[in-house]
Amino acid sequence: MSAPRTPDFQPSFHTQHAPFGAFASFSIGLVGSPGGFGQSLRGAGHQNVYVGYRTGDAPDALWQMLPFFRPPQSNEGAFTGADPGNSVAPTGFTMLEPSAYERTLGWASDTWRAGSGRFGFSLLSPFAPIADPARMSRAAARFALAPVVTGWIEFDNRTGKTPVELMFGIGELDRLQRPVADAGLDLPGFAVGPDFGYATARSAAVGQRLGFDVFAPKFRDYRGLHVIGGESALTFKVPAGQKKRFPLVLAFFQGAAVTTGISAGYAYAQFFENLEDVLAHGLANRARYESIAARRDRELASSGLDADQQFLLAQAAHSYLGSTQLLWHKGKPLWVVNEGEYRMMNTFDLTVDHLFWELKWTPWAVRNALDLFVDRYSYTDKILAGGKSVPGGLSFTHDMGVMNHFTPDGHSSYECDHLHGCFSHMTMEQLLNWVLCAVTYAEKTGDVKWLRKRKAILLACAESIHRRDNPNPALRDGIMKHDSARCGTDGSEITTYDSLDVSLGQARNNLYLSVKTLGAWILLERAFKHLGLHEDSADARATADLLARTIATKFEADTQSFPAVFEKGNRSRIIPAVEGFVYPLYLGIKEATARDGRFAELLDLLSKHLCGILKPGICLDGKSGGWKMSSTSTNTWFSKIAIAQHVIRSLFPEAMTEAARAADRVHADWQRRPGCGEHAMCDQINSETGIVCGSRYYPRGVTTILWLLK
Amino acid sequence: MSAPRTPDFQPSFHTQHAPFGAFASFSIGLVGSPGGFGQSLRGAGHQNVYVGYRTGDAPDALWQMLPFFRPPQSNEGAFTGADPGNSVAPTGFTMLEPSAYERTLGWASDTWRAGSGRFGFSLLSPFAPIADPARMSRAAARFALAPVVTGWIEFDNRTGKTPVELMFGIGELDRLQRPVADAGLDLPGFAVGPDFGYATARSAAVGQRLGFDVFAPKFRDYRGLHVIGGESALTFKVPAGQKKRFPLVLAFFQGAAVTTGISAGYAYAQFFENLEDVLAHGLANRARYESIAARRDRELASSGLDADQQFLLAQAAHSYLGSTQLLWHKGKPLWVVNEGEYRMMNTFDLTVDHLFWELKWTPWAVRNALDLFVDRYSYTDKILAGGKSVPGGLSFTHDMGVMNHFTPDGHSSYECDHLHGCFSHMTMEQLLNWVLCAVTYAEKTGDVKWLRKRKAILLACAESIHRRDNPNPALRDGIMKHDSARCGTDGSEITTYDSLDVSLGQARNNLYLSVKTLGAWILLERAFKHLGLHEDSADARATADLLARTIATKFEADTQSFPAVFEKGNRSRIIPAVEGFVYPLYLGIKEATARDGRFAELLDLLSKHLCGILKPGICLDGKSGGWKMSSTSTNTWFSKIAIAQHVIRSLFPEAMTEAARAADRVHADWQRRPGCGEHAMCDQINSETGIVCGSRYYPRGVTTILWLLK
Repeated sequence: MSAPRTPDFQPSFHTQHAPFGAFASFSIGLVGSPGGFGQSLRGAGHQNVYVGYRTGDAPDALWQMLPFFRPPQSNEGAFTGADPGNSVAPTGFTMLEPSAYERTLGWASDTWRAGSGRFGFSLLSPFAPIADPARMSRAAARFALAPVVTGWIEFDNRTGKTPVELMFGIGELDRLQRPVADAGLDLPGFAVGPDFGYATARSAAVGQRLGFDVFAPKFRDYRGLHVIGGESALTFKVPAGQKKRFPLVLAFFQGAAVTTGISAGYAYAQFFENLEDVLAHGLANRARYESIAARRDRELASSGLDADQQFLLAQAAHSYLGSTQLLWHKGKPLWVVNEGEYRMMNTFDLTVDHLFWELKWTPWAVRNALDLFVDRYSYTDKILAGGKSVPGGLSFTHDMGVMNHFTPDGHSSYECDHLHGCFSHMTMEQLLNWVLCAVTYAEKTGDVKWLRKRKAILLACAESIHRRDNPNPALRDGIMKHDSARCGTDGSEITTYDSLDVSLGQARNNLYLSVKTLGAWILLERAFKHLGLHEDSADARATADLLARTIATKFEADTQSFPAVFEKGNRSRIIPAVEGFVYPLYLGIKEATARDGRFAELLDLLSKHLCGILKPGICLDGKSGGWKMSSTSTNTWFSKIAIAQHVIRSLFPEAMTEAARAADRVHADWQRRPGCGEHAMCDQINSETGIVCGSRYYPRGVTTILWLLK
Repeated sequence: MSAPRTPDFQPSFHTQHAPFGAFASFSIGLVGSPGGFGQSLRGAGHQNVYVGYRTGDAPDALWQMLPFFRPPQSNEGAFTGADPGNSVAPTGFTMLEPSAYERTLGWASDTWRAGSGRFGFSLLSPFAPIADPARMSRAAARFALAPVVTGWIEFDNRTGKTPVELMFGIGELDRLQRPVADAGLDLPGFAVGPDFGYATARSAAVGQRLGFDVFAPKFRDYRGLHVIGGESALTFKVPAGQKKRFPLVLAFFQGAAVTTGISAGYAYAQFFENLEDVLAHGLANRARYESIAARRDRELASSGLDADQQFLLAQAAHSYLGSTQLLWHKGKPLWVVNEGEYRMMNTFDLTVDHLFWELKWTPWAVRNALDLFVDRYSYTDKILAGGKSVPGGLSFTHDMGVMNHFTPDGHSSYECDHLHGCFSHMTMEQLLNWVLCAVTYAEKTGDVKWLRKRKAILLACAESIHRRDNPNPALRDGIMKHDSARCGTDGSEITTYDSLDVSLGQARNNLYLSVKTLGAWILLERAFKHLGLHEDSADARATADLLARTIATKFEADTQSFPAVFEKGNRSRIIPAVEGFVYPLYLGIKEATARDGRFAELLDLLSKHLCGILKPGICLDGKSGGWKMSSTSTNTWFSKIAIAQHVIRSLFPEAMTEAARAADRVHADWQRRPGCGEHAMCDQINSETGIVCGSRYYPRGVTTILWLLK
């Protein structure tokens, strides 16, 4: 989708161009900024990226460059002993203004056009359904798991009178570069150590530059390069009268174990020997990769979504891929999605949101994470009831570790004790997340065999949810009211909305969490039935009914809306009141979502709630018009907006006013401006300013895939 | 050696604390600056280093910290969605002024004292003779090659009335940290991925901190840590009335192949399983490491050198170790010294200067490099004579690659074609370097077997030197006058003094290179004799005599000195005129160095030359008093000064005026000030300002070991 462009608003944002499962990205797009290759980073890389062309073959013909580098002070001075102050930055180029080029971000592609469309440069991030890597053939695994990004650079010089030269390259002064050919791969291209690099196909039209200055290489060795230079580029000649497109392959490779706690390496390292193997593979298979990317682009273009929505899906898909990490441990795949800038591993709050995306492309990944949550990241706690510590039940950790480190059994990297806000435990939230993920996975894929294997876990989860309502069955109303003893007597549980205000942060007596609990019971009823556990199914159904009635009693007649927390006179208004309905909605459990069905009363109240709050000044920001998760916080989360939008469009269309609908443009513009765009897809955004306030470089925007469901 | 301290001059310099052969350093010392762990970097790392103590156990007792960190803006805000502008930097500490602590750099230790000497912190970089790793026992290899730095932190609280707490830690927000224990090593400590970390011994006195703020940890998980925080520290309690010293171990580990071109990993990875293995080993063997470090310190302290000279040796040894890299390739050791900030591998100009150091500690390393120069980095060129290209002969490349990349056979990373200055070929210089290293190695170690194996190479070298004088034997005068055809018809060879002015840069008709050639012939005469090649020995002797006579004819009667270049009326004055005599001097070839011996005439002229130029305004800088390699360049190189000083003290003591001797203080102060000290040992220095202008973080200062020769 071309972003809308006005003289006042030129889109400027990084996009992560990432292979599947390599926790690696090639980031570019932010105007005036470097980016490039990054492995396990918390944001874009810092390499200059050289993409451009020049017309005419005179030595002084100026290069027309996309603005993705900062002209480096030449490193030459470090060798010649020159005063660094006298070091001369490269010349011989023009940095194109954003108005001089057009950028089109597709679901699986990112294309720049300049020179009246004659110059083109594109990077592709194809994605497709991937079979379970545990049972893949080697050929299939090489294709699906290759840590490669393909692309192309072209020029249509059919009407040109002079030759044109194209350039693609990077600058990396900290680590330098080497010719790809030096590691035995006879292709033009350059790499940084054994770790990442790029190449193109052999051709007489291709030139190689490596030195202090890609625009005017001053020092050339026997093959025209200077290996100490740190700046590299491929050049491509397009004769007058011809149109030529040249392939590009960008690859990553880490062959050794990269994680600690659990020591594991990348799955792709099982199927590729080294970086050169990946580069050669990428080049040989580029047509297949391109055709998949083109298919994804067509699907999004024909989705019926508007341009802003399409942009949001496209940007989200790119950042998600950059956070994915498929490891290999003891002969089996080990799935991780890293949490953007935080790099926490398989944060369960994200797993449950990535669910809809992953069930479409990689359903085995959901199961893989759920199994590891059971096998290593579960625990049985006590809860605090009436001042006493009594048995609680099973739950799961917030995450599995951080930045390539798996934390010890039963413990996350995030959760701390004795707290009431951020960094407290999320016992109830993660308990619901396991149930919701497990049942949704099993129902959607039909993998009843797996669900049966996990029957005891599911039963323990149901009991654990019950006990957090009240250890005494007679006193239950369905709502979580007892904090895990892990918090200590001087702490309390939080929800995934940790950094919002108390309206969403507190777990106990929380509207959002209560409706999510309702969603869990609806799914448990279904799952227990399929497992032949009729008594448990009936209990789940009864609990759901009880809980729905209880929630309904919290409706404020005077304001015609729900308070965010059923305590202390809280009167915050929150959109995620309806988030819990996304699961039965997704699974098509009509009797639970029908407005005239068993939850008719609650759904009607929620409709009133939504109609009342989706207004400027309440949950539409008074300044920007963007959606606010909570009326009392300017911190809003895009991925959660996307879920809410899907639920509201499907179940509460009456709440979708013109103002609410108009916010798509606002949300897209947030991401297209440097305030977010510096960090690719962002999630936590200040709803007044549109500037990111957390969750940068973030994978969770793929909740937008819900928008494609009819 | 304690650096001299005045109110106006507080020493401020980084020192590299480095294991042998790991191409890794823990750098600290620059006032107000981070440093910390660095692997294959071109300068100090960027981690905060927390070293200090606090008296009293009140929570608000201020930490007294060495100034090796910049108070980080807490990373907490990224999680809590807070405005980064409101992020609060840690408090609860005082950054010690340099006047409040004393630093003592030993040959193998670096110790800080504060609190009237009661607080102490020390890092040790022991070095000792190391046997050939190809024939080491596993136990010996583990001890000699462990990528570990040991140290200690202590407090003498015997007169104290309150407990004291000590701290050692680092901050690494880009990569975060994890408890060492999570990878199965039951020690207090923290690591960054599988790559580097630190630990101490188990003790009830030891505490661990990991989070956003080591001074006031706000968030604590079940074990009191917060794994997402990125800042870590160990704390140590010293009760009132006691003196306690706690051990520290700092370790590095890279298990996979790290180089390309030749794909090789570290030798230590053959003998250690992982980082934890290294940490445990370091702790278990710390007493042995400490005793070696103490022995080295004592040797230097009792050397008779003055405090400034001792400082220079100590700082040099540390930076040399940080550049060493012992690889393992196809079952054999592969020796590399990286060239400081440039990271060129086995730059031959450095190999020949490291010779004196390495023949003392690791003579096999010299042979290892010489063999690889023959087997992979040699070539046979043509030379340009009378406008024609005629056969030249054998020579060697300037280096073997750069930044962990081995360049292809017969080519360096540095040398380019068609140039007259920096980056041109150094064919003659490297040819001499091979001869000088090979013969010095064989003569010093008595490894005649190896020399015999390389007899053909030695003969080819002699012939190659001859031909670069003149292809026609009848026209030879001993001086190199023909450039390698590798330079092209529009280029010419340079010397290792590439970035100085033409007085040292040009190879042809160069005084420095001519005397170095003389050194080579003197050594060849000796070597050929030992190989029974009497005719060749006689030829070498005759050539040396011829060359000495020729050089003598270049003496300028009017100025009583030699011109730097015997061309174009050059009248630069250079100190390295005598560098070539260091080899016969080192080998004790008295007949070649005796002032009344066969080269008496030349030595007398050189004496006049030196006496004339070692004066302020000529080769002593008029402003600083430091030695200038060339009268016409302010770029001077410390490592080369050190060689010249040794030769002049030994052979030309009459030139060692008071002013020339006083420069030791100048040279030491250059390195002790931030102008050089920011980059640990520096080599290329502006002689007026004392500020580095190239060759930062540089290994070559170990030429100072010559000063220990009696």
